[in-house]
Amino acid sequence: MNLVMVTGNRHKFLETLEIARSMGIRLIQKPFEIREVRGTLEEIARDKAEKAFAAVGRPVICDDSGFFVDALNGFPGEFSAFVFGKIGVSGILKLMKGVADRGAEFRCAACYYDGGRFVVKPGVVRGTIPEEARGSRGFGYDPIFVPEGHTRTFAEDFGYKMKVSHRRRAFQALFEELSKKFHKEQG
Amino acid sequence: MNLVMVTGNRHKFLETLEIARSMGIRLIQKPFEIREVRGTLEEIARDKAEKAFAAVGRPVICDDSGFFVDALNGFPGEFSAFVFGKIGVSGILKLMKGVADRGAEFRCAACYYDGGRFVVKPGVVRGTIPEEARGSRGFGYDPIFVPEGHTRTFAEDFGYKMKVSHRRRAFQALFEELSKKFHKEQG
Repeated sequence: MNLVMVTGNRHKFLETLEIARSMGIRLIQKPFEIREVRGTLEEIARDKAEKAFAAVGRPVICDDSGFFVDALNGFPGEFSAFVFGKIGVSGILKLMKGVADRGAEFRCAACYYDGGRFVVKPGVVRGTIPEEARGSRGFGYDPIFVPEGHTRTFAEDFGYKMKVSHRRRAFQALFEELSKKFHKEQG
Repeated sequence: MNLVMVTGNRHKFLETLEIARSMGIRLIQKPFEIREVRGTLEEIARDKAEKAFAAVGRPVICDDSGFFVDALNGFPGEFSAFVFGKIGVSGILKLMKGVADRGAEFRCAACYYDGGRFVVKPGVVRGTIPEEARGSRGFGYDPIFVPEGHTRTFAEDFGYKMKVSHRRRAFQALFEELSKKFHKEQG
């Protein structure tokens, strides 16, 4: 199965590529500038997929992801990329200074659209925010996220991120469903 | 002249109503739920006006406004309402702790759309962020904004806000242009 992933984020593409490869799916990246709407991750992902399909003319996948901090009412959430560009991980650490509740989660909504049918799968990974940023792998908020049951951040242990991340969970579920559909149609 | 202002924000409406009244314009509020796009204040305001006109069927005005902090690369900017709902003024004060550059500005894009023609006017007011929130009038970031040439925050001196605010400047320019247009068409 061949799929087109629309995203301008190279990190995001490479992570999804590795998940796809492990499931025998070929993926190509199509950077595509989309005016995003505001909404939930799923709404944003669906809208993105719809606009991308209209432009690309063939089935597409995409995602929308966010970092949700419990003590900050889910901030930065759906606006994670924007907030990261403005105040970075240091801004989040500053907001979390002296805050006892360190809980946070990454969420992803992985979306497929072929002009007729949507498939959307969520993926979540819970964890905690350390006092200081650690590690240099990954991207975004990875240096300030220690997944549950682990001691190192996503940016320190990228291999572990690839196993348990929100993106892994969402896209694995998406690819499984698409594979079933594909084989059914072939068979 | 009668105008419909589309906004769910009662504070925003009342401020604009006072500006309109001082210029002999009648204004009614139409709360209207719009899925906002992401973009500049002007782009968001135009999109909002276009969608509102399609629903209301008569000329509309609206605005999009934001609070831009110099030392935070313009954060929270176009996402001011969302950020306010998540981390509030205390979050901004925390991010600004120990930061020497206290400069900030409020910006507004006031927009009119009648199905054929857009009129968009910007309004800006510069000022500084105090160490602590002060005052209880106004809304949003008003307690942490001291306008240039003044010593009290917008939330302490609401009368002063009404004279110099970003919204005053934008809507006064908008109403002036609309009045000219209106009188020309009547005459």
